[in-house]
Amino acid sequence: MARSGRRRVEPPARDPGRAGRDTVRRAARRSIGVNGAEALVETLRLAGLQVCFTNPGSSELELLAAGLSSELHTVLCLEEGIATGAADGFARMSGVPAATLLHQGPGLANGLANLHNAKRALSPVVNLVGASATTHHELDGPLECDIEILAGPMSGWVRTVRDARLITADTRAAIVAAHLPTPGVATLIVPSDLAAAPSGGAVWDAPGLRLPAPSSNGVDELIPLLHNGSGDDVTVLLGGTALDRHGLSVAAQVCRTLGWRPVAEAFPRLLAGGPDSLFLTRLAADPAVARRQLAGTRHLVLAGARLPVTAFAQQGAPGTLAPADCRIWSLAAPNEDATAALLQLADASRRSSSQYDAPTRSARRPPLALPTVAKPLTTELLATVVAMMLPENAVVVDETNSSGPEFAAALREAPPHDLLTGCGFAIGQGLPLAVGAAIAVPDRRVVCLESDGSAMYALAAFWSQAHEDLNVTTIILNNRGYGILRRIAPAPTTGFFDLSAPEIDYVSVAAGLGVPGARVRTTAELRTQLGRALTHPGPYLIDAELLTIS
Amino acid sequence: MARSGRRRVEPPARDPGRAGRDTVRRAARRSIGVNGAEALVETLRLAGLQVCFTNPGSSELELLAAGLSSELHTVLCLEEGIATGAADGFARMSGVPAATLLHQGPGLANGLANLHNAKRALSPVVNLVGASATTHHELDGPLECDIEILAGPMSGWVRTVRDARLITADTRAAIVAAHLPTPGVATLIVPSDLAAAPSGGAVWDAPGLRLPAPSSNGVDELIPLLHNGSGDDVTVLLGGTALDRHGLSVAAQVCRTLGWRPVAEAFPRLLAGGPDSLFLTRLAADPAVARRQLAGTRHLVLAGARLPVTAFAQQGAPGTLAPADCRIWSLAAPNEDATAALLQLADASRRSSSQYDAPTRSARRPPLALPTVAKPLTTELLATVVAMMLPENAVVVDETNSSGPEFAAALREAPPHDLLTGCGFAIGQGLPLAVGAAIAVPDRRVVCLESDGSAMYALAAFWSQAHEDLNVTTIILNNRGYGILRRIAPAPTTGFFDLSAPEIDYVSVAAGLGVPGARVRTTAELRTQLGRALTHPGPYLIDAELLTIS
Repeated sequence: MARSGRRRVEPPARDPGRAGRDTVRRAARRSIGVNGAEALVETLRLAGLQVCFTNPGSSELELLAAGLSSELHTVLCLEEGIATGAADGFARMSGVPAATLLHQGPGLANGLANLHNAKRALSPVVNLVGASATTHHELDGPLECDIEILAGPMSGWVRTVRDARLITADTRAAIVAAHLPTPGVATLIVPSDLAAAPSGGAVWDAPGLRLPAPSSNGVDELIPLLHNGSGDDVTVLLGGTALDRHGLSVAAQVCRTLGWRPVAEAFPRLLAGGPDSLFLTRLAADPAVARRQLAGTRHLVLAGARLPVTAFAQQGAPGTLAPADCRIWSLAAPNEDATAALLQLADASRRSSSQYDAPTRSARRPPLALPTVAKPLTTELLATVVAMMLPENAVVVDETNSSGPEFAAALREAPPHDLLTGCGFAIGQGLPLAVGAAIAVPDRRVVCLESDGSAMYALAAFWSQAHEDLNVTTIILNNRGYGILRRIAPAPTTGFFDLSAPEIDYVSVAAGLGVPGARVRTTAELRTQLGRALTHPGPYLIDAELLTIS
Repeated sequence: MARSGRRRVEPPARDPGRAGRDTVRRAARRSIGVNGAEALVETLRLAGLQVCFTNPGSSELELLAAGLSSELHTVLCLEEGIATGAADGFARMSGVPAATLLHQGPGLANGLANLHNAKRALSPVVNLVGASATTHHELDGPLECDIEILAGPMSGWVRTVRDARLITADTRAAIVAAHLPTPGVATLIVPSDLAAAPSGGAVWDAPGLRLPAPSSNGVDELIPLLHNGSGDDVTVLLGGTALDRHGLSVAAQVCRTLGWRPVAEAFPRLLAGGPDSLFLTRLAADPAVARRQLAGTRHLVLAGARLPVTAFAQQGAPGTLAPADCRIWSLAAPNEDATAALLQLADASRRSSSQYDAPTRSARRPPLALPTVAKPLTTELLATVVAMMLPENAVVVDETNSSGPEFAAALREAPPHDLLTGCGFAIGQGLPLAVGAAIAVPDRRVVCLESDGSAMYALAAFWSQAHEDLNVTTIILNNRGYGILRRIAPAPTTGFFDLSAPEIDYVSVAAGLGVPGARVRTTAELRTQLGRALTHPGPYLIDAELLTIS
């Protein structure tokens, strides 16, 4: 099986969250005689963009040619959802926006679900859509549809290029819009004739783009709470930058000083897992468990997190998860720098009380225990083995769905790692996120925990893993069904969610797409295969057959 | 490998195009005490709908439960694009709308590209989207997005249920909108709480739904042309109902009588291929060839076909394919019954001239010739073998893309069959269309001609083929690249369209999803495998390795 080693992007700085925001840097004006596509691509490069994930079609071939002729690392994905999911993963791990390049309305449509996830993850993405020529539009050819309307729900910003001479300004606006006021998806639609037409050249003179600083209102309003006795009825829900490694150390200090209870949002875009996160719990996906976690809270402080709600309405139960009588305080919105807000709060707290202590490190919990003999794999045992064998500084992509609680518990005990979860709940993001993350941090090991049902949405991602020779270990949590629906669906339908007729052999599927692998049924087999996967370069698949719990 | 034999739909009538339009029949009012979901499903059933293709999530479980408790054949698809593409295939072969059931905004997003194809194919689809509860909407949960906006570009009609007591009226309106004024996609968004709420019961009292009759204007305006000498500068471009078996016999009569040149539109929703189509040519996808086919035309009569345009703008060339000075006549619009219009024309012609002859059958061309020794497979040889071995009355699904011309030529010589092509050019419809067609006509053999690049969009369709034990033979036209882009792209990019690193093994992929198969490299291997595939029940895959023509 041949593999093509493609050129790598520049290795990012150690702290991707912060470094990335600095990377979109001020650059000198440059002007070169080029067509629209070349001006667009050069503007992306001047703004610090490094990668474009694409599934090209007819109308964006000029853009593709310009990208391939530049320093932009152009990654071929065999379906658009893989391109958009990879862009999300890249942005999360590098802090730099990724570009995507998609084909007209239908190509965009295929990428929308993972753009929804990227939008919810506040991941900056410059989403380029090649449209038919302006001269062709009125002929209503077979691919025509309203791309601007289609892009709207999953984009924070949409624009169509109307004049090749203004394409640089449009590109610049798209890059800024991918960051401000809220990081997310900026869709720029480029008609093919304008991509080929002469332009004024590339320009990037925007200031460095950072997350908005938190308004001081949030901190000022919280001052009374700082004097509020022991603080044990205060829960701070952490999200955004408060969950990267630097943010966690600040949050830990603040919580210890004030006696507040720290909880991480249920589905963080990036959580620095392992020892540094042991001082907090992560909100459970199960509403009943989440309500227990938040019980007794009289004050809920949102620090970069959204108001916690159930994913779905349950009859007779409220959609919000916090106690009905608790007061909500907004310290930092999801698009603000929650860490900066926590630092301001620490400062105010020092001024307003003498409680502030030096940070203490939480005690490490007892080590995870593995069975001494081979046992059939349960989700819990699988999670334990993965957490124990996880390499230091790994990136863990989590689309565990019904197996989530077991992994959330086990990964607390794992070595330091970065955890990426599904912020938008659109199924099928795990494999693409892993592609993007692995391209962003090629020297780190990516472990993708993927549910069997979700994997079916993006099988072609295996090909890009092999094509780019990425260090991704995919573990399929194979319970032969839609586990989450089996749990919540009315009884007459549960048999419908069975995926065992025919049984899916992910090893065969991945092998056909260029990724070797093996099926495992016991803890011993898992340890052998995981050891192999984590020490060899390139992608590997482990199809973990789980004991089905009925 | 286990397979589950599910219940079949009622076998459709022999002529699906006409029978289908009659099947959406007037039914007696019925009223039963049921919830919204049950009323909706019962209304679908009363209107003659038989099948629902679904990938369910959280918010439509009530609808799923109602469907599973009814006579509606509910087909599990493992990604939404498979559900929507299958609905298109089912509608084309049965003439009856299929229902789809999708999960909120992101699930709908995944299904949009094939809804675009269905819309362009004028295939009636009742597209049901389960939305979050009305009480939950304002909480902006993780899956929230504007479903109405998202559905717009690919739908002819969109509505959200606002009151469970009106769900029957909404469902009825959706079914009518899927037929009139233009058959296509009607999207009905159903909040989960309204699906569970009490409703007034099911009702179907709509008249039978048929394609609009052609306006008599078209015929009247054409009267002067009927007296226009030999008619050899008139080309009639046939589409819609004019391309089913009945329509072709009418069209052949008219053309022989008037001396008009018959051409089929390039990408018909259904063309009755084989002997009955030998009197016409099909417009080529290649603009240069299409222009030669239409050269000399001074009058272009559109009979159920759209104005022929290029798929993409080419610099310096017009987007329309007919000669610049030719006059365009609209005999029947794509949403009108072109056969009825042709019959009116024949009638007018008889009144206005004495040229009308009894129809004559076209002479059969010389039989296709096969090499006597095994040869490496070229596209032409592959097409020849498939055409020669095609069973009588097969359904051929055509997503051949760059291999299209060879198949179009060879299939002219094949036994009678129905050909389904991609009307909307959104890649990835072949495998799903085949699923839907096979469910519509379980006693006929479906042969799916699928390009290697396009197959990657809908791999999970293999699982549904196996799960439903469908008689689908998939032939992958494996040229290890995006052949169509290699041809049209600027030189620096062509290497980018290579799919050979790693090489994709479709046999391994399909086997992992429950469909057996084999790779073939020579005409002899192809004949052996195709013989096996076409005589055994259930799905089979042939991965045809083509000599790459550079």
